[in-house]
Amino acid sequence: MTLVPAESHARSSAQAALATAFAPQSVAIAGVSPRTTGWGGGQMFLRGIRNLDVVPQVYCLNPRGGELDDGTPLYRTLADVPGPVESLISAVPASAILGLIDDAIDKGVRVIHLFTAGFGETGSSERAGLEAEVLRKLDDAGIRLIGPNCMGIHSTRGGVSWMEDGSTTPGRVGMLSQSGMNASEVVGEGRRRGIEFSNVASFGNASDLNEADFLEFLAHDSDTDIVLAYLEGIRNGRDFMRVARLMSQSRKPLAVLKGGLTEAGSRAASSHTGSLAGSAQIWNAVQRQAGFIPADSVEELLDLAVTIERMPEVAGPRCAVLGGGGGVSVLAADICDRNDIPVPWFSEDTQRVLREFTPVAGTSIRNPLDAGFMFEGEHMETAFSAIADDPGIDWLMIHMGADSMGPRSASTGQDDFAERTANQIAATSAKVSKPLAVVIRQPRTNSGFARGLDLQHRLNEHGVACYQSIAASARAVRRYLDWQTR
Amino acid sequence: MTLVPAESHARSSAQAALATAFAPQSVAIAGVSPRTTGWGGGQMFLRGIRNLDVVPQVYCLNPRGGELDDGTPLYRTLADVPGPVESLISAVPASAILGLIDDAIDKGVRVIHLFTAGFGETGSSERAGLEAEVLRKLDDAGIRLIGPNCMGIHSTRGGVSWMEDGSTTPGRVGMLSQSGMNASEVVGEGRRRGIEFSNVASFGNASDLNEADFLEFLAHDSDTDIVLAYLEGIRNGRDFMRVARLMSQSRKPLAVLKGGLTEAGSRAASSHTGSLAGSAQIWNAVQRQAGFIPADSVEELLDLAVTIERMPEVAGPRCAVLGGGGGVSVLAADICDRNDIPVPWFSEDTQRVLREFTPVAGTSIRNPLDAGFMFEGEHMETAFSAIADDPGIDWLMIHMGADSMGPRSASTGQDDFAERTANQIAATSAKVSKPLAVVIRQPRTNSGFARGLDLQHRLNEHGVACYQSIAASARAVRRYLDWQTR
Repeated sequence: MTLVPAESHARSSAQAALATAFAPQSVAIAGVSPRTTGWGGGQMFLRGIRNLDVVPQVYCLNPRGGELDDGTPLYRTLADVPGPVESLISAVPASAILGLIDDAIDKGVRVIHLFTAGFGETGSSERAGLEAEVLRKLDDAGIRLIGPNCMGIHSTRGGVSWMEDGSTTPGRVGMLSQSGMNASEVVGEGRRRGIEFSNVASFGNASDLNEADFLEFLAHDSDTDIVLAYLEGIRNGRDFMRVARLMSQSRKPLAVLKGGLTEAGSRAASSHTGSLAGSAQIWNAVQRQAGFIPADSVEELLDLAVTIERMPEVAGPRCAVLGGGGGVSVLAADICDRNDIPVPWFSEDTQRVLREFTPVAGTSIRNPLDAGFMFEGEHMETAFSAIADDPGIDWLMIHMGADSMGPRSASTGQDDFAERTANQIAATSAKVSKPLAVVIRQPRTNSGFARGLDLQHRLNEHGVACYQSIAASARAVRRYLDWQTR
Repeated sequence: MTLVPAESHARSSAQAALATAFAPQSVAIAGVSPRTTGWGGGQMFLRGIRNLDVVPQVYCLNPRGGELDDGTPLYRTLADVPGPVESLISAVPASAILGLIDDAIDKGVRVIHLFTAGFGETGSSERAGLEAEVLRKLDDAGIRLIGPNCMGIHSTRGGVSWMEDGSTTPGRVGMLSQSGMNASEVVGEGRRRGIEFSNVASFGNASDLNEADFLEFLAHDSDTDIVLAYLEGIRNGRDFMRVARLMSQSRKPLAVLKGGLTEAGSRAASSHTGSLAGSAQIWNAVQRQAGFIPADSVEELLDLAVTIERMPEVAGPRCAVLGGGGGVSVLAADICDRNDIPVPWFSEDTQRVLREFTPVAGTSIRNPLDAGFMFEGEHMETAFSAIADDPGIDWLMIHMGADSMGPRSASTGQDDFAERTANQIAATSAKVSKPLAVVIRQPRTNSGFARGLDLQHRLNEHGVACYQSIAASARAVRRYLDWQTR
């Protein structure tokens, strides 16, 4: 007879619970207000789920009963729900939580997500006691808990979300986050960056299911190729390290943004999710041992996802920096150098090709290439091919602004800037022998923003990696290369 | 009899030439194409000058003669110009420069700006020889030179500009820049940030008048309270240091962005303006001795101008970070801490006031204050007053996004978000006892960008300091304080 160790049992129970939470057959939402406008927690989840193409059986609860404007019934208790309920989302106040838990146990719910906040993270011992009581009840019943104090699950394939305007397109990037807002930011901003998500979890206080459980789920999730994480505290360092190392060994990229690495941030994390955040020194050691990719901001998590998805073939750091503007080029070279991205002069052969059609005044053809006119078309493919074939260059970075159309303004109308530019870059990118990235500098006018956004969407469709600054591009490529060569 | 030393004579000749260049009675532009559309150098300066409210007497030159569409005559040579010409702007090719210089000497021109490029910066010895010949001729004639390879002068009060869509509002910020594009960026982006300029110079190769001359002019310019600089090489280190130290002693702020501090950047600077850029180590020593404020990007130059103009009374670094979002608050505290901006917990008294109207769940009242609802109005003044009166706090930073209107969406229409928010912040700012800054996070939608821009413009009008990121705000305040406490 084989004994299953308790630890392994807990792990498989956690993974089974998460499989349900990410793709439930049936969901009940407790605390749905009958008003269909306004923010209210329960309504938010209902709208998030209904926004998706795959919608599980959903039941709405409200102690007063009644129905929504569209006729959806509001059940007074879980006992009134006519079918089974696998997953429960709670948006009731903390004061009503114990009764709801009792009902959930009776109903046979498998996993509960507490959007409900106001527990240990408040610093009140009374509320910490309530949290302990919730955990004890659930543990006795074998029900696993997501949260409390979090947004829970977003899964386009599984039909669960808190984002009423979230993307409905299934993608290959997963995320675990101790902050719902940071997760929402990454998913929302991801849409602009052309990054779509598989399974996303906001897990707040992590009182039961914690970062190691979510990471394990995403590590083994066949819908997920890349995992992003925002963490404040680590509840289960041993398992987190084990899974992170496993991912590193199996070359499944994991990028982690750690909040609370400073004294002030650590104090804030204790107020936010009751986390013990630890020091930057310890975290750096963890990073080196676990072999994930460190990120310094929410934006950088997406920069890394873009790099991994769109530039998998970048073989080294040596960069050709291409654009218009002498001072911009000097600062671009400084920024690359500071991020350990070399900007070597082009070979004599390459310079000879460029010299053939570049006027000598007001330009530079050494690297950075300062020759805005080149993006006009005629010479772009020749120039870029020569640069890509330069043995001293590993990748090409084009930087451009969208506020003015620069040398294009004479020949083209404003409206086709994004289309023409995107098509030209995509065509060039397809023909040159090295990976190519595009930096669209921050706009300052409404029309510049709209043009830049349009250009970004079109480049996304062509699979071209886009970044919002030269620094972001350089840093992401450097960190990805560092991870690859570990 | 008093002997005027040669050095002092050169200095006063330089300052006299600059006084003419920044506010000439008469300007000739050489190399004006008869086509009034399109980019062409000469047309650019004509449009730049005509865009302003103060316009000097302007003459346009073209070797073929004729006239512009609007009847403006095109003189074949300077000799044909019917009146005196104090200042000459050259947009002719380098091959035509020697003839133009001879004509300018005959005409009695006092200062020449060479937009014309293609001299020493190309690395060609023949072209460097041409540059030397130009300098010799001008030196013999006592004419001073701006450039070559630069955009020259932008002065709203003096009536000279290369920016056809530049702001026409005179301001109190001056700039010297070795890059025309960086100067254009700062002036253009300055408009969005509510920063208006007095006198701006792009001076390229600095073959004659150099950074020390321009700095001296702006240091003594009574229209200029703050000076921003973008530099690649230093031609006259002794005088630059002398003037910078003088400014530091007289408390006239100078912020300097130095390009070419890395190896790659230094190579790029030599291609751009023929500058010897020097090392970061030497530059840091220069910065410490000269006592200016260092900046790391074009954006940071403006962050510093915003801080100096709008937050002159900030007495210390200790910051109250105010906004919604737990994870955002944790990362905000980290960012502040890393920039040496402490985020201490509020006093018990302050927390007691906040606790009175802050729900315990999903918020934090310690600092950062994570309570987005607070910006709804009712409690904002009470809360902010209590925080501002906290003896542990020196300044308040509000961070917000403009993509969604957060808790406002239920009660207000989209259109008045910017107006309502700006009015409320301005009213609060006027009532609280400490300086207040606003961070409008980077938007991701067209409507978010437009709302954020509208909000920014309104806050500018109210004189509220606005930044584009928490990091930008923290760093600028820190650097300004460091400069103040030197």
